[in-house]
Amino acid sequence: MNLNDLLNHRSEWLKGTGPHSDIVISSRIRLARNLASAPFPHWSNKKQGRDVLDAIEQAVGKINYLKGTTIFELADLDSLDKQFLVERHLMSYGHAHKTNSKAVVIDNEEIVSLMVNEEDHIRLQVMQSGFNLFEAWNIINRIDDCLAKELSFAFSLDYGYLTACPTNTGTGMRGSVMLHLPALVIIGQIKQVLNAISKLSFTTRGLYGEGTEATGNFFQVSNQVSLGHSETEIIENINGLIRQIIEQENQARETLMSKNKSVVEDKISRSFGILKNAHIISSQETTELLSMVRLGISLGLIKEIDSSSVNELFIITQPAHLQKLENKKLSSQERDVKRAEIIRDKLNKQ
Amino acid sequence: MNLNDLLNHRSEWLKGTGPHSDIVISSRIRLARNLASAPFPHWSNKKQGRDVLDAIEQAVGKINYLKGTTIFELADLDSLDKQFLVERHLMSYGHAHKTNSKAVVIDNEEIVSLMVNEEDHIRLQVMQSGFNLFEAWNIINRIDDCLAKELSFAFSLDYGYLTACPTNTGTGMRGSVMLHLPALVIIGQIKQVLNAISKLSFTTRGLYGEGTEATGNFFQVSNQVSLGHSETEIIENINGLIRQIIEQENQARETLMSKNKSVVEDKISRSFGILKNAHIISSQETTELLSMVRLGISLGLIKEIDSSSVNELFIITQPAHLQKLENKKLSSQERDVKRAEIIRDKLNKQ
Repeated sequence: MNLNDLLNHRSEWLKGTGPHSDIVISSRIRLARNLASAPFPHWSNKKQGRDVLDAIEQAVGKINYLKGTTIFELADLDSLDKQFLVERHLMSYGHAHKTNSKAVVIDNEEIVSLMVNEEDHIRLQVMQSGFNLFEAWNIINRIDDCLAKELSFAFSLDYGYLTACPTNTGTGMRGSVMLHLPALVIIGQIKQVLNAISKLSFTTRGLYGEGTEATGNFFQVSNQVSLGHSETEIIENINGLIRQIIEQENQARETLMSKNKSVVEDKISRSFGILKNAHIISSQETTELLSMVRLGISLGLIKEIDSSSVNELFIITQPAHLQKLENKKLSSQERDVKRAEIIRDKLNKQ
Repeated sequence: MNLNDLLNHRSEWLKGTGPHSDIVISSRIRLARNLASAPFPHWSNKKQGRDVLDAIEQAVGKINYLKGTTIFELADLDSLDKQFLVERHLMSYGHAHKTNSKAVVIDNEEIVSLMVNEEDHIRLQVMQSGFNLFEAWNIINRIDDCLAKELSFAFSLDYGYLTACPTNTGTGMRGSVMLHLPALVIIGQIKQVLNAISKLSFTTRGLYGEGTEATGNFFQVSNQVSLGHSETEIIENINGLIRQIIEQENQARETLMSKNKSVVEDKISRSFGILKNAHIISSQETTELLSMVRLGISLGLIKEIDSSSVNELFIITQPAHLQKLENKKLSSQERDVKRAEIIRDKLNKQ
């Protein structure tokens, strides 16, 4: 697989399928693992980092489930490629910088990604479309078992998996769910919901993970604690919380439709109209307007386009995607023009 | 003719034809005349007002050129009808209030309108589409000659036609031209142009005449002085000024297209997109967006609709028109919904 192959390909997790996919974009499980034989990445010297990468690369090659994957060493990628992978949620922003034997392993469907020498030796991630944490868990658990047969992980009987940052120690697992909560935002109840989430020891982030702001009414909710509970208990906890949020968002949508239908219809329809007609559009405005279109599809107010196409637009209108599609470096102004062009093409074709 | 007949009829002056109709919406000449036999309207008692109305009604009936006209006494019209006539530019806002033997005479094509007992006994107006003051003058002059044969006008050899307000004395004529100057507004030169206009003893007003603000980049320019020059001299003066403004607007449009094409294209296309999709829209926003669409048609950026349809939308989306179309009283909120519906219908049908 070449990185450019991904460009015209719709990631599995963007397909807009799976349970509650009108509210839950995607479910993600990631595991942090470290080799017992080497210091954590930021304590490793060059040789140690290289040895870790070689060992993991070898292990991956032996695992049947990972047969269809490709390994990209970050030293071989230019900054555009790296940004491209971050935009596709295949690796973290932090992983794109500093390149001591870093790599990322990706499968064709973009369900599995494995970062080597990020904060931990291994950051394994499995993404699923919709509200589907257990399915993601089943896949990642199988891969983890295979990896454990090939590699000797740093593990303590008292603490569980040892990780570079103590907050990940234990299961080394984080489950997160990307939620689209426009109705709770519009009726002004989102603050309450976010407060409740943080009191229950979960964290909320924006579209691009740690440190990013919530735009377009997207909220990524994940567990903070990974110690003292089994993986399935943690997932069950997240699921319980997410079910409540889904219920609240659904109620908010009903409220909107019963009390403010024409205002909502106006907002949604205008957003769609602007996207179909703009010739210059920023990334921020795109996210906000697409968010309204996504709501419109869920509410049955927009029928010309499916949510899978909208999900895809969120991804391909980002800076690195635009530049790879155009196959050249684009200034911010040029990107705003290209972005508008792509959106017009997609939405007017439907 | 019934007032409702006008509802689905496109006034002659809205046809978007005539010289320079991309910049000049319409040209209008009005004459102020008073009968020598009666005091000015605001000094008249009931009987005197009635006598004036009867005399004018009789005269109108005898004039061949006015055969196709209908006379509406304002006492017979409800407030919606009156507002409707104001919105169609067939009578002044002031004429709609206080009803001492007031009337308005209108022809089917809405080229001619004659207000009885407004500020003067007779306010005769002729409208033409595009930059066409002399054509309007030819028509109004013919009608004025016919009226003069039937009625004895207050006229002084020293001052010319006598009028209720001294600013109209002399020719009693005002020529005005409705201009659409979006490019001068966008590139920030409009203030300069308006200053120059006022220094040359012309006045600038908004869409609805005296006391109204300029919205949607529409400016009505007319002569201030009606004394000391012949009618054709006054018209030639206005024409000279308007030709310069047209030239400046055309230059501004060229500047926009050569230096800021994508920004302009974006603004125009978004405006069109919002109009085609909004479900709630105010009168003010409608005017502003239609103004951009009109510019888009002139610049060849919008081809799905002609400027005549846009001109018509300016008129039929106004409050009284909406209520007459819906055939019932509508609240401001209801009008915003109905307005959006009409605009969507018209623009998406094209």
